[in-house]
Amino acid sequence: MPEFLTVLPPEEALAKLFEYLSATPASEVVPIGEGLNRVTAEAIRAPENLPPFARATMDGYAVHAQDTFGASGALPAYLNVVAEVPMGRAPDFDLKPAQAALIHTGGLIPNGADAVVQIEVTQKSHTHEIEVLKAVAPGENVLHPGDDVALGQVLFPSGHLLRPQDLGGLAGLGLTQLKVARRPRVALLATGDEALDPLASAAPGQVRDVNSYSVAGQIERAGGLPLRRGIIPDNFAALQTAAQSALTEADALLFSAGSSVSVRDCRLGGVMGLGGPGIIAHCVAVKPVKPAILAVANGKPVFALPGNPVSAMVIADLFVTPTLYRLQGCTNLPARQSIWAKITHNLPSSTGRVDYTPARLISRDGEQWAEPVFGKSNQIFTLVFADGMIVTPRDSNGLSAGERVEVRLF
Amino acid sequence: MPEFLTVLPPEEALAKLFEYLSATPASEVVPIGEGLNRVTAEAIRAPENLPPFARATMDGYAVHAQDTFGASGALPAYLNVVAEVPMGRAPDFDLKPAQAALIHTGGLIPNGADAVVQIEVTQKSHTHEIEVLKAVAPGENVLHPGDDVALGQVLFPSGHLLRPQDLGGLAGLGLTQLKVARRPRVALLATGDEALDPLASAAPGQVRDVNSYSVAGQIERAGGLPLRRGIIPDNFAALQTAAQSALTEADALLFSAGSSVSVRDCRLGGVMGLGGPGIIAHCVAVKPVKPAILAVANGKPVFALPGNPVSAMVIADLFVTPTLYRLQGCTNLPARQSIWAKITHNLPSSTGRVDYTPARLISRDGEQWAEPVFGKSNQIFTLVFADGMIVTPRDSNGLSAGERVEVRLF
Repeated sequence: MPEFLTVLPPEEALAKLFEYLSATPASEVVPIGEGLNRVTAEAIRAPENLPPFARATMDGYAVHAQDTFGASGALPAYLNVVAEVPMGRAPDFDLKPAQAALIHTGGLIPNGADAVVQIEVTQKSHTHEIEVLKAVAPGENVLHPGDDVALGQVLFPSGHLLRPQDLGGLAGLGLTQLKVARRPRVALLATGDEALDPLASAAPGQVRDVNSYSVAGQIERAGGLPLRRGIIPDNFAALQTAAQSALTEADALLFSAGSSVSVRDCRLGGVMGLGGPGIIAHCVAVKPVKPAILAVANGKPVFALPGNPVSAMVIADLFVTPTLYRLQGCTNLPARQSIWAKITHNLPSSTGRVDYTPARLISRDGEQWAEPVFGKSNQIFTLVFADGMIVTPRDSNGLSAGERVEVRLF
Repeated sequence: MPEFLTVLPPEEALAKLFEYLSATPASEVVPIGEGLNRVTAEAIRAPENLPPFARATMDGYAVHAQDTFGASGALPAYLNVVAEVPMGRAPDFDLKPAQAALIHTGGLIPNGADAVVQIEVTQKSHTHEIEVLKAVAPGENVLHPGDDVALGQVLFPSGHLLRPQDLGGLAGLGLTQLKVARRPRVALLATGDEALDPLASAAPGQVRDVNSYSVAGQIERAGGLPLRRGIIPDNFAALQTAAQSALTEADALLFSAGSSVSVRDCRLGGVMGLGGPGIIAHCVAVKPVKPAILAVANGKPVFALPGNPVSAMVIADLFVTPTLYRLQGCTNLPARQSIWAKITHNLPSSTGRVDYTPARLISRDGEQWAEPVFGKSNQIFTLVFADGMIVTPRDSNGLSAGERVEVRLF
């Protein structure tokens, strides 16, 4: 099997895979209420100034700033209160010198006025007269048109993952229909004569399919739509038929390997038959990872994940997640949640390989510690009972108890 | 307005609010494929051992370990290969002394065998005979029943937020129907004569409703279902009718204030009329926050958020998000994404108040810096153009350029 020699470090393998993917994601238009965690498929510019008119930022009186110059508690400026600015409508008057108009935060500054005196630095002297006890500068307590964002300004580049505040900004500009990248549909094929749908009841020797659920969760987190396409026996023809059918309706394909030897060739064969360029890389420079395969078939990424649940999740985290963001054209990937903690035990490793070890976070003497959860990579519960994975870097030959280590939260 | 005197620090206010909420969330049953980010509503125990049978963890030969004791390259142990263990089925033979059976990773260990010799330390001597070149201990390369998780073991307590690996673990045990907390429905009422639905076209003086979209995004992130109930004018009767109607169908209610003065009393009145105990706290010990109100009406939390978009998001982050997790009974809240960076500018503050300042993260000389995005709290785009918020702690009277600061990612 000479193909198994194309072993690359994760970053290189991923870069090579990306070369074959389209730079332009398929797009669709969604209403703003469905925009969270979607990725813009075009640059978005402000269609108007925000605010579109000069607004008060304080409760008080709209004034000519000049009328207040020199005002103090000892020597107030006296102004005639001629009106109240209505909320939500343009005032139907202009403000003349020596006049003031009651205004509320958010109110439209009337023509003629250029500042707002805060209500706290005024007092009523007569029914329609106030004393201003402190001068204001022109523009004070006023938000001018375009101060928040200006007409034509780029709000988001194409490829921006939309967060809650982004939706607020778009709503503020009346942009309620958003052109976003389509969520990549990811077909999941579990393989192996021993693999069993978790919905079915198990017989001796059968193993329920874990990866179609754990990896599906990772796919959802990265904005993808998992399509579980069931369990395919260790049979080349069946596998190839299922893979071809899955790839016509999906944007990416994931094989989750059975754990038997024979399936490995099947899987390879299956990948090979789907279209060019085929296998890009085999990735094994991480532990715990049995052979994992990255391939491209007619512009669509194809991954063969190891059958071991922990290995499958590590591979999905390293390769599938970034590929899904890439398929959406996303440039502002959410920061991967990592924390630093002291490790409770020595953890041996080999240089030239990145190790991932499930770990539980515990508090001890007011400090955060990471306690390795030892187990085999086919034990999904080592990861269930963990908070994350301790990362042993490639150039390390082990971690010592008490050392500060990175824990990727899973 | 004597009610405005109940000002509490955020943690105390929240603790007081929680006293009035039910400890038992409403629950529903969902299929496992919809389980991501849902919260378990009961403790879940393993209904069987995982694995349910002894499995090989390597490709090789099932053997009696004792038959290999003392074996080496110079002095191999000779064993008769009597069968191959089929994948996905129980073997129909027992292994007798001096016998071996070909087995694949995941295969069921046949009766009589107690270890697996890796294929790499064997070689074929005759058609049905192998040489074992290295001894194995009893149990070696075997995963025993219950090694991953044992029958009856608690997998998750009630209140566990389900992650991808948790779904994998549940699938592995055939647990495909999950009893989870219902997603809290959160009614959003925008108030203010000047507030405008972003779907409508704006006239001078009108301001589009930002908070019903930005805060809705925060609600979704915390597992809630936002129900936008539109815009209510500054009118006591209209507001109370809308609030009462919203609370009958929702589990929590959020008022987003208009920015005029008058609405403030309305809002208070509205809160008061909904049921006991009413207002729990006013929270203003953070900046930028205009008065925010926490209340409880007949066991349901009610929040009056400030109208300023940035303030509204800070309040939602501090109070609404943890309340939504509380309503789901969640005990393993996801770690809030915070990073530490050096601040580029001096940032003044006052002790006794926690300040939140929008900031952009930039790389400079290989280090991460946080650059404040200055603006007013009614400018949603200060937050859109930011990566997070610099937190100035309560006991600080300002941050100095170059100091390391916490940035909460938004």
